[in-house]
Amino acid sequence: MEYFTNVKKVKYEGIDSKNPLAFKIYNAEEIIGGKTMEEHLKFSVAYWHTFAEELTDPFGSGTAIRPWDNITDPMEKAKAKVEAAFELFEKLNVPYFAFHDVDIAPEGESLKETFENMDIIVDLIKEKMETSKTKLLWNTVNNFSHPRFVHGAASSNNADVFAYAAAKVKKGLEVGKKLGSQSYVFWGGREGYESLLNTDMGLEVDNLGRFFHMAIDYASKIGYEGQFLIEPKPKEPTSHQYDFDVATTHAFLQKYNLDDKLKFNIEANHATLAGHSFEHELRYARINKMLGSVDANQGHPLLGWDTDEFPSDMYATTLAMYEILKNGGLEKGGLNFDSKVRRTSFEPEDLFRAHIVGMDSFALGLKVAHKMIEENVFENIIDKRYKSFNEGIGKDIVEGNTDFDKLTEHALNLKEVKNESGQLEVIKGVLNQYILQALSGK
Amino acid sequence: MEYFTNVKKVKYEGIDSKNPLAFKIYNAEEIIGGKTMEEHLKFSVAYWHTFAEELTDPFGSGTAIRPWDNITDPMEKAKAKVEAAFELFEKLNVPYFAFHDVDIAPEGESLKETFENMDIIVDLIKEKMETSKTKLLWNTVNNFSHPRFVHGAASSNNADVFAYAAAKVKKGLEVGKKLGSQSYVFWGGREGYESLLNTDMGLEVDNLGRFFHMAIDYASKIGYEGQFLIEPKPKEPTSHQYDFDVATTHAFLQKYNLDDKLKFNIEANHATLAGHSFEHELRYARINKMLGSVDANQGHPLLGWDTDEFPSDMYATTLAMYEILKNGGLEKGGLNFDSKVRRTSFEPEDLFRAHIVGMDSFALGLKVAHKMIEENVFENIIDKRYKSFNEGIGKDIVEGNTDFDKLTEHALNLKEVKNESGQLEVIKGVLNQYILQALSGK
Amino acid sequence: MEYFTNVKKVKYEGIDSKNPLAFKIYNAEEIIGGKTMEEHLKFSVAYWHTFAEELTDPFGSGTAIRPWDNITDPMEKAKAKVEAAFELFEKLNVPYFAFHDVDIAPEGESLKETFENMDIIVDLIKEKMETSKTKLLWNTVNNFSHPRFVHGAASSNNADVFAYAAAKVKKGLEVGKKLGSQSYVFWGGREGYESLLNTDMGLEVDNLGRFFHMAIDYASKIGYEGQFLIEPKPKEPTSHQYDFDVATTHAFLQKYNLDDKLKFNIEANHATLAGHSFEHELRYARINKMLGSVDANQGHPLLGWDTDEFPSDMYATTLAMYEILKNGGLEKGGLNFDSKVRRTSFEPEDLFRAHIVGMDSFALGLKVAHKMIEENVFENIIDKRYKSFNEGIGKDIVEGNTDFDKLTEHALNLKEVKNESGQLEVIKGVLNQYILQALSGK
Amino acid sequence: MEYFTNVKKVKYEGIDSKNPLAFKIYNAEEIIGGKTMEEHLKFSVAYWHTFAEELTDPFGSGTAIRPWDNITDPMEKAKAKVEAAFELFEKLNVPYFAFHDVDIAPEGESLKETFENMDIIVDLIKEKMETSKTKLLWNTVNNFSHPRFVHGAASSNNADVFAYAAAKVKKGLEVGKKLGSQSYVFWGGREGYESLLNTDMGLEVDNLGRFFHMAIDYASKIGYEGQFLIEPKPKEPTSHQYDFDVATTHAFLQKYNLDDKLKFNIEANHATLAGHSFEHELRYARINKMLGSVDANQGHPLLGWDTDEFPSDMYATTLAMYEILKNGGLEKGGLNFDSKVRRTSFEPEDLFRAHIVGMDSFALGLKVAHKMIEENVFENIIDKRYKSFNEGIGKDIVEGNTDFDKLTEHALNLKEVKNESGQLEVIKGVLNQYILQALSGK
Ligand SMILES: [Co+2]
Ligand SMILES: [Co+2]
Ligand SMILES: [Co+2]
Ligand SMILES: [Co+2]
Ligand SMILES: [Co+2]
Ligand SMILES: [Co+2]
Ligand SMILES: [Co+2]
Ligand SMILES: [Co+2]
Repeated sequence: MEYFTNVKKVKYEGIDSKNPLAFKIYNAEEIIGGKTMEEHLKFSVAYWHTFAEELTDPFGSGTAIRPWDNITDPMEKAKAKVEAAFELFEKLNVPYFAFHDVDIAPEGESLKETFENMDIIVDLIKEKMETSKTKLLWNTVNNFSHPRFVHGAASSNNADVFAYAAAKVKKGLEVGKKLGSQSYVFWGGREGYESLLNTDMGLEVDNLGRFFHMAIDYASKIGYEGQFLIEPKPKEPTSHQYDFDVATTHAFLQKYNLDDKLKFNIEANHATLAGHSFEHELRYARINKMLGSVDANQGHPLLGWDTDEFPSDMYATTLAMYEILKNGGLEKGGLNFDSKVRRTSFEPEDLFRAHIVGMDSFALGLKVAHKMIEENVFENIIDKRYKSFNEGIGKDIVEGNTDFDKLTEHALNLKEVKNESGQLEVIKGVLNQYILQALSGK
Repeated sequence: MEYFTNVKKVKYEGIDSKNPLAFKIYNAEEIIGGKTMEEHLKFSVAYWHTFAEELTDPFGSGTAIRPWDNITDPMEKAKAKVEAAFELFEKLNVPYFAFHDVDIAPEGESLKETFENMDIIVDLIKEKMETSKTKLLWNTVNNFSHPRFVHGAASSNNADVFAYAAAKVKKGLEVGKKLGSQSYVFWGGREGYESLLNTDMGLEVDNLGRFFHMAIDYASKIGYEGQFLIEPKPKEPTSHQYDFDVATTHAFLQKYNLDDKLKFNIEANHATLAGHSFEHELRYARINKMLGSVDANQGHPLLGWDTDEFPSDMYATTLAMYEILKNGGLEKGGLNFDSKVRRTSFEPEDLFRAHIVGMDSFALGLKVAHKMIEENVFENIIDKRYKSFNEGIGKDIVEGNTDFDKLTEHALNLKEVKNESGQLEVIKGVLNQYILQALSGK
Repeated sequence: MEYFTNVKKVKYEGIDSKNPLAFKIYNAEEIIGGKTMEEHLKFSVAYWHTFAEELTDPFGSGTAIRPWDNITDPMEKAKAKVEAAFELFEKLNVPYFAFHDVDIAPEGESLKETFENMDIIVDLIKEKMETSKTKLLWNTVNNFSHPRFVHGAASSNNADVFAYAAAKVKKGLEVGKKLGSQSYVFWGGREGYESLLNTDMGLEVDNLGRFFHMAIDYASKIGYEGQFLIEPKPKEPTSHQYDFDVATTHAFLQKYNLDDKLKFNIEANHATLAGHSFEHELRYARINKMLGSVDANQGHPLLGWDTDEFPSDMYATTLAMYEILKNGGLEKGGLNFDSKVRRTSFEPEDLFRAHIVGMDSFALGLKVAHKMIEENVFENIIDKRYKSFNEGIGKDIVEGNTDFDKLTEHALNLKEVKNESGQLEVIKGVLNQYILQALSGK
Repeated sequence: MEYFTNVKKVKYEGIDSKNPLAFKIYNAEEIIGGKTMEEHLKFSVAYWHTFAEELTDPFGSGTAIRPWDNITDPMEKAKAKVEAAFELFEKLNVPYFAFHDVDIAPEGESLKETFENMDIIVDLIKEKMETSKTKLLWNTVNNFSHPRFVHGAASSNNADVFAYAAAKVKKGLEVGKKLGSQSYVFWGGREGYESLLNTDMGLEVDNLGRFFHMAIDYASKIGYEGQFLIEPKPKEPTSHQYDFDVATTHAFLQKYNLDDKLKFNIEANHATLAGHSFEHELRYARINKMLGSVDANQGHPLLGWDTDEFPSDMYATTLAMYEILKNGGLEKGGLNFDSKVRRTSFEPEDLFRAHIVGMDSFALGLKVAHKMIEENVFENIIDKRYKSFNEGIGKDIVEGNTDFDKLTEHALNLKEVKNESGQLEVIKGVLNQYILQALSGK
C-alpha cells in the first residue's frame, strides 16, 4: 500500500519553482566535475528522525501525524514503517539510509526476543533492498534510551550493562554485515559523566577503549568490512560526553591505539555545541585523514542543545562541501540527514518538504564549493599567504633543517618583520559573490 | 625604598578577623597531613597581572594606581618593579613567582637590544632572589602582544616570525636556567586561527609541533632541567586556539610524539571558556599523568571571555585541591595566581587584598579536600558504585579476559539488569557539610 | 496505605549527621530574627516534578521507580498520588505545595471530561488538606504539553486554541479559589515563537495582554483573592519566549497596564538561561516592588537548557535569601522546589533525599543572609560608596533640584574627580567568612 | 593632501567584479521601489572604528597602519583625521557619519580645555560639511573610557562623575545642534554593575532616569531637534548593563515616562550577545513604533564578546532590511557601520575594502527584502496562518468582545482543535531561493 498518498515522486523543477514538493537545485543526474550530484552527495535518510520520531520535546508530547499511527501491534507497525521508508526513499530518490537497532524493531521482553524481533525486520529490509537502489550507509545500536543504560553503556559502573551493550553491538555488526552497511557508527549516547563527584573517569574511559577493541576484533572475526566511525558530541545527554569533539576523540583513539581503525562521523550541530564551526571539525578530521562521514543538519545559533534541524544555511553547506571535495569525497561515508522536522512541522508531507530543503541546500553548497575549487579561490589565498615557507628559512623549518640557534641568528639579522593584511572581510565578500552567482550558469 | 607603604607583612588572624590585610584561613606553617600549607599550595604571584597590568579593558584606559607610576624611563621603571615585586612577595610570604619576558623588561629597538634589556633585569632579579625565599615557579615569553605576532608566532604564515619567536623562546630557556625556574610554560597566545577561510591549518599545526621539538632539543642542549608545560585555552585571542582544552592538546602532543615531554598547566578560567569545569580539566590531566601546574583564578559564569578573577569560590578550590592531592601534589608546578584585580579595584593595596582572598580560598579548599580524602568520602562512593568490576564478568572486562561472544552469552543469561541511584543530590549536600565544618576543628 | 515505606518522618539531626534522610541545617521551629525557619522559608513541593515526572530525557525513557507504578487506571493512579503526596508533605513537614491541572488529574476524551476528572481529584485534595498543615502555595494550568498547544496557547495563531486555553485557566482559577491557593501562576509554556519567519509577533503579544486582562476580570468576578504571578523564562520550549526575563516581562506588563496586577515568580534556572544571576532577577523585581514568589532550583553552569536541579549552591541560596529578607519576605509567595531529581536518582527515596538537600541549602542561606543583614554588611558598603548622594550636588540630583546647566558649572569647577576602589575581591572574601561561620554559633 | 593614495573613488562594477575596491552590488543611484539605494540604506561611517581605532585587543597592542601615524601633536592629528575622514566619505560616497566627542578631539588638561579642543575640531568639521554631501547621522559622547568613569557615569556612585557626565552630554547636544545631527545616541558605556554585592541598583537606575530627563529638557531648551536614541547592550563592559536589550530598555523607558521621547538604536552584535537574533530586536522595536536607527555590524557566533565585525551575512542583512522596509524606513536614523576591521586587516586600504563588503551585503539584503515584500511572501504566510482571528471567536478576541465565560463555552463546544504545520523548513528554503535569485534580474 502507499503511505504518503499526497506525495508523488519528487522532481527537479529548477530555482524558479514554487512547489514545496520539488527540488529547486538538487538534480541527481547533473554532472559536476565528472561525477553526478548523487555520487558527490550520497544523501542518506535517518530512520530514527523520519520513522521513529514522535516530535515530543521536554515540555510536550508527540505531535507527529503519521500514516502508520493507527497500527497498534509493535511488530506490525515496524513492518509498516519499512514499507513506508522504502516508499519515501524512492519518492525522494535517496541512495542511502541509516538506522539504530531500536528504530527498526521493538525491544522484546528479553534480549533474545529483541534479537528475534530484529531478525524479522532485518529480513524484510533485506528483501526490500533487493528491488531498491537505496543502500545502507551505516547502522548502529541504541545503547542509551532504555533505563538499563541510565549510567552509560560501555562506560557504565555496572559490568552487566557493559555486557548487555556488547551483545547489542555484536548483533549490530552482524546486521550490518547482512545488509552490506558501508560503515558502523559509534555515537556516545550516555558514554560520559553527569558529575565527577561520583565518577571513576579513569576506569570508564579505559573500559570504553576496551569495548572498541573488542568490537573491532569481532568485526574482524565475522568478516565485517564496513568502516568504523565514531561520532563526537559534547554535552548531551550526559553533562560531559567522553567524545566531546573531534580533537578530544582523536586523543582517545591515539591513547588506546585505535586511531588507524576508526574515522569520524561529524555532525554539524554537535560541532557548534562544542564551540566549533562545522567546517572546523571537518577540517580537523581531514588533515588527520580521518574524515569518514557526515551527519548533515544544523543547530539553532541561540539555543544550547542539539536541535538537529534540517540544513538550510548556504554558508555552512558550502564550507562543508569544500572540505568534503578537498577530502576526495567520503569513500564509505555520505551525507546522512540526522535532522528532524520541527515539532510544529507535524504533517507527513513535512518529512518530504524538509528533506528537499536539506538536499537543495547541500546541492547548492556542492556547486559553490566545486566552482571555488576549480578557480582555486582559497588555494590562491593560501599559497600567497604562506609563500615564505617555500624558500629560505621557511623551507628549512618545514623540512626540519634548522634549530633554535640558526633561527635566532636569522631573527637577530632581520631588518624588519613585514606582515600583510589577512583581508578577511574581502574573502567573505568573495564567498558571497560565489553563492550569488552559483546558479547563474557562468 | 618601600613601595607599598600602607601594607605591613600580612599575618594570619583567623576566620573572625575583619582586617582585609590579614589571612583568615591561610596559615603558612600549619600542618595538614604531614606537610605545611605552604608546601601543599606552592602559591605563585603572576608578574604580568601584578606588576605589568594597567587595568585597561576594551572600553577604557588603565585605572591602576601604582607606586612606580611616576617613573618614566622604561628601564628604571622595570627595576623599580623588581624591587616592588620582592617587597610584595615578602609581605605576602609567597614562595614563588612567574613571568613572561616582556613583563620584566621593555622591548628595545632591536631584538638584540631587547635581549640586553632583559639581561640587566634578569641579573637584578637573580640578585634579589639570593636574599629572598621566593623562587621562580615558571617563566615564559610573550609571543603574542607585539604587532609582528599579528598572525601568530610558531603558527604564523610568516617564516620570519617563526624565527623571531624561536629566538625569544631560546632566550626564555636561558633565562629559566639562569634563575632556576621549576618549569617553562607554553601558552598559545595567537597560535590558532581567526578564520579557516585564509588558514592552512595543517601546515600551522605541523609547524607548532616542529617548534616544540626544537625547544625541547635546545633545552636539552643547554641542560635546562625544568618541566615543560603547555597551557590550553579555547578561543581568545584567536577565534580557535590550537590548544583548545586539555584533551585537544593531548591529541596534539600524542600526534607529534610530545606527550612524554610536556605536562599541562591548567587554568580555571580557560577550562570554563572551553565548556568544562575546572576539575574536569584537572582530572583529565591527572588520569593521564600529565597534571603539571595550575593557573589559579576563576571566570565569571555569565561572561564569555577570560576574566582572570582572583579565586574565591570554595566549591572550585575544594575540587581543585582534591585533584591536586590525589595527584600527590604538583611536583615542579604550583598554584600560580593568573588573576588580576578588577579594573574597579585600582588601588595598590588591592593587589594584596585580592591575593589574600585567593590564598584563603585555596587554603580552605585544601582543608576540605584533605579531610574528605582522609575520610575516603568520594573513594567510598566510587568503590561501592563500581564494585561490579572487581569480580566475575566485570573483572574479566578490566583484565582483558573476555570478548563479544562471552559478553553476549553473559547478557543473554541475565535475569534482570539492576542499577542503583547515583544519589548526586546527597553527595552535593555532603560536600556542603564538609565545607561548613572545615574550620570547626572537628 | 503507606507509599514511602523506607522513609520515616524526617528529623533535624544537625550538621554532623551522616543520615541522608535527616535535616542537617533546616530546623523548622528554630527562630531566626523573630520568625521560625518554616515561616521564613515557606517551602513548597512541586507536584509535577515529584509526582508526575517519569525522569525521561530527550535521549531516554523514564527511569523513575515509584510506589504507584503498578496502578494502571489513570484516575486510580491520580488518587494514589494524592495519598502519596500528603504522606511526603507530612514526612518532610513542608507547609506548601503547587500544581498544574494535568499534574493532578488525567485529561479526558473531551474538555468536559477533563474538568470532571479534575473535580474528583480536587475534592480529594481538599479533603486531605482538611487534616493536613500543608496549604496550596499556588496552582496553574498546563497549556503547553498537549499537541493542541503546538503553536502556543494565548499566543497561538489559532483562535480555538486561545479559547481552549482560556477555559482551562478559568477552571484553574475556580480550583485555586476552592483550595485557597495563595497565588495563581502564569508560566509562558509555548507563549513565544519558534521563528519570526512565520510569526505575527505584534498580534501574538497583544493577544497575550488580552488574555491576562480577561483572567484578572474573571478572578475578580468569582472573588478569587490570590496574587497573580508571572514566571519569566527565556528560550525553552520556544526559541524566544515572550516572558524572556523579569525586565522583558516588566515592559510587557507596563505596556498592557498590568504592572499593578501581577508580580513575579522567579526561577533560578530561568534567570541563568537568560544570562542573569538569580539574585539579579530577584533584585530587579524587588526594587520594582514586584517580587512575588520564588521557584527554588538551580541550573548546570555548563549546560544550555533548564536542568531544574535541586538547589545546593550556598552562594546562590544566601544571595537569594538576602533579597527575600530585604523584601520583607514573600507575602503570598514561597520557595517552591521547581526541582527534579536527576534521571540517575530514580529511587523513591531520592525524592526525600533531594528535598532535604534543597531545604538545608536554603536554611543555610537564610542563616547567612540574616546574619549579614543584622550586621549591615552590605548596607555599610553601600552607604559608604554612595555617600556623595546624601549632600551637595548629589542630594540635588536625587531630589530633582538641578539641571544640565548647574551640573556643568559644578563639573567645570571640579579640581579633580576622585574615585575609590570597589574592593570586590574583599567583599567576596567576607561572604566566604559568613558562610564558613554560619553554623559556629557566633 | 590626499591620505588614502592607493584608493580612488569606489565605483559600482557589478557582481562579476574581482576588484576589492569596487562595489559589486551597491549601486547608489539604482532605484528600488521608488527610492534610490542611497536613500533606502543611509549608510554612515563610524568615526571611532575608522579613525580612532588602533586595532588593539586585550592580548596585543595596536596593529593599525594609518596615514596620520607620523603626526604626533594631538590637535594636529585630530585635524588630519578630519581631512582623511572626508576623503574617505567622498571616495566611498557615504551620505552620513557618526562620532563620540573623544573620537574627534583629544581630551585636555581640564574639562574646559577639552571643550575648547572640541570646538576647534567641530568648526573644522562644519567647514568640511559645507562642501561635502556627507551629513551627521548622529553624535554622542564617550562617558566610559576615562578612569573617572570607572564606576559608571550617570549611574556612578560618585555624584561628581554624574555632573561631569552631564556636562559632556550638554556639550554633545550643542555640538549636535551646530552640526545638524539627525539624532543623539545614548549607549550605556559603564551604566550597569559589575556585581550586586556593592551596588545600589535602585538608586543607580533612578539616577539614570533623572539623567535622561535632564538631557531632554536641555535639548528642548536649546532647540535641538534631533531624535533621541538609546542603544541597548547586555554585558560589556559591565557584567550587567542596565540597557540589556530592547525589551529591558523598553521597561526602563516606560517606568520613567521616557518611552515617547526616545527610540532605539539597535546593534546586531548587541542583539546576539543578549541571546536574541538581530531581527528580533528590530521587530520588537518596530511593533512598539520605536525603531530609530541601526548599528550595522555582526558578531562571531562562537565568541562571547562584541566583535563588531563588518556585516557580510546575507541572511542577517535581508531580515534586517525586511524590518526596516516594513517600518517605512528609518526616518532620522540610518545604517551606521559600528564595525571595525579585524586586527589582522591592518592596512589603510582595509578600511575601504571592509566598508565595501558591508555596503554590498546590505544592498543585497535590500534587494531581497524588497522583492519578498513586493511579492507578499511573508505576508501571505502570516495571513493564512492567523486567519482565524479575522472572524468568529477570533475576531471577538481581537476586538475585546469576549470573556472567559464565552470562551469557555466556545471551547466546550469544539469538536476538535485543528492545527496546521508551520512549514518552517519550507520557508527557509524559499528565503534561499530569493537570495539566490536576487541578482538574476527576474
Ligand atoms: Co548525529
Ligand atoms: Co544531533
Ligand atoms: Co593562564
Ligand atoms: Co586566563
Ligand atoms: Co519554574
Ligand atoms: Co525550570
Ligand atoms: Co553600537
Ligand atoms: Co558593538
